[in-house]
Amino acid sequence: MKLLKDKIAQEGKVLSENVLKVDTFLNHQIDPELMQAIGEEFATRYKDEGITKIVTIESSGIAPSMFAGLTLGVPVVFARKRKSLTLTDNLYTSKVHSFTKNETNDISISQNFLSSDDVVLIIDDFLANGQAVLGLLDIVEQANAKTAGVGIVIEKGFQTGGGIIRERGIRVDSLANIKSLANGKVEFFEEASTR
Amino acid sequence: MKLLKDKIAQEGKVLSENVLKVDTFLNHQIDPELMQAIGEEFATRYKDEGITKIVTIESSGIAPSMFAGLTLGVPVVFARKRKSLTLTDNLYTSKVHSFTKNETNDISISQNFLSSDDVVLIIDDFLANGQAVLGLLDIVEQANAKTAGVGIVIEKGFQTGGGIIRERGIRVDSLANIKSLANGKVEFFEEASTR
Repeated sequence: MKLLKDKIAQEGKVLSENVLKVDTFLNHQIDPELMQAIGEEFATRYKDEGITKIVTIESSGIAPSMFAGLTLGVPVVFARKRKSLTLTDNLYTSKVHSFTKNETNDISISQNFLSSDDVVLIIDDFLANGQAVLGLLDIVEQANAKTAGVGIVIEKGFQTGGGIIRERGIRVDSLANIKSLANGKVEFFEEASTR
Repeated sequence: MKLLKDKIAQEGKVLSENVLKVDTFLNHQIDPELMQAIGEEFATRYKDEGITKIVTIESSGIAPSMFAGLTLGVPVVFARKRKSLTLTDNLYTSKVHSFTKNETNDISISQNFLSSDDVVLIIDDFLANGQAVLGLLDIVEQANAKTAGVGIVIEKGFQTGGGIIRERGIRVDSLANIKSLANGKVEFFEEASTR
């Protein structure tokens, strides 16, 4: 997606060979127009897949998911990273290890909001080692729902997550797929979208 | 806002005299069409105030903020919640006590995304005791930015937060203002919006 790749080229900060900071438009400050374009792109790609629900994870997955959900006319459910007091019983839960923070969290979704009737589009901001998406896939499986695919804003294609998920036969659409962050420069794969 | 009050009446679950659960459309599953209507309502109310930035807090404030930001043509910045910050470089921080969770968290916004040139609309999902909004107001003050007002999706008007903030001369727009949750029933104040 050219609009997104241009934005990354202009505003992304390469902090190391593994870390790209995009907090001017995605992870802290958010650009609503770009999120709308991203959400609509996901919606266009999945419009014939019979999606009934968008599943994402707090916090940075919520913004692009809102616009995908609006365009597809379906609700968005976001997984919580820890349990709150009003949300205890009736949960699907999975463990997600964060390599950046070096900690493992439970993520959870209420059983009220996912069922075997659902066809799910999973959306997240980043795909690196794939832990968050694997946790969401686990939750969708627990609900006996169907995953139509995974929509990712920025994939770090030089890390293992995308390969692991695609090897499981799951469709992954990344709107920007990064080949390398070496020498302080962002290099993209030619084809950002891979089925 | 009638659409919102109808939704609360239909789907809100009164768990106690103080707790209203609205996780079917706001706090866990999110209704994108309703969020769009809410965001556009905030934008309409603040269209002549010269807003340059929406400030909210993760996670449930993000969805309505996206649509307000899109309509007003301004970025959204969400404050992050953290247990406690060791690295506080380049951050505005404030402490927020959660009575529901009985814990105090630091909230923070990067100094890159708020300055004395900004006119801020603060948006949050709930206003109860006002701790989260007071923390955001503190951060806006640290940046020497101006707060044009506070947009709240659901105010629990029988709690103290709204009064505390309005007494400081700050405009608060609540789209649904709850008078009472007694006897398992949601009762609204006549006028949901108060300046």
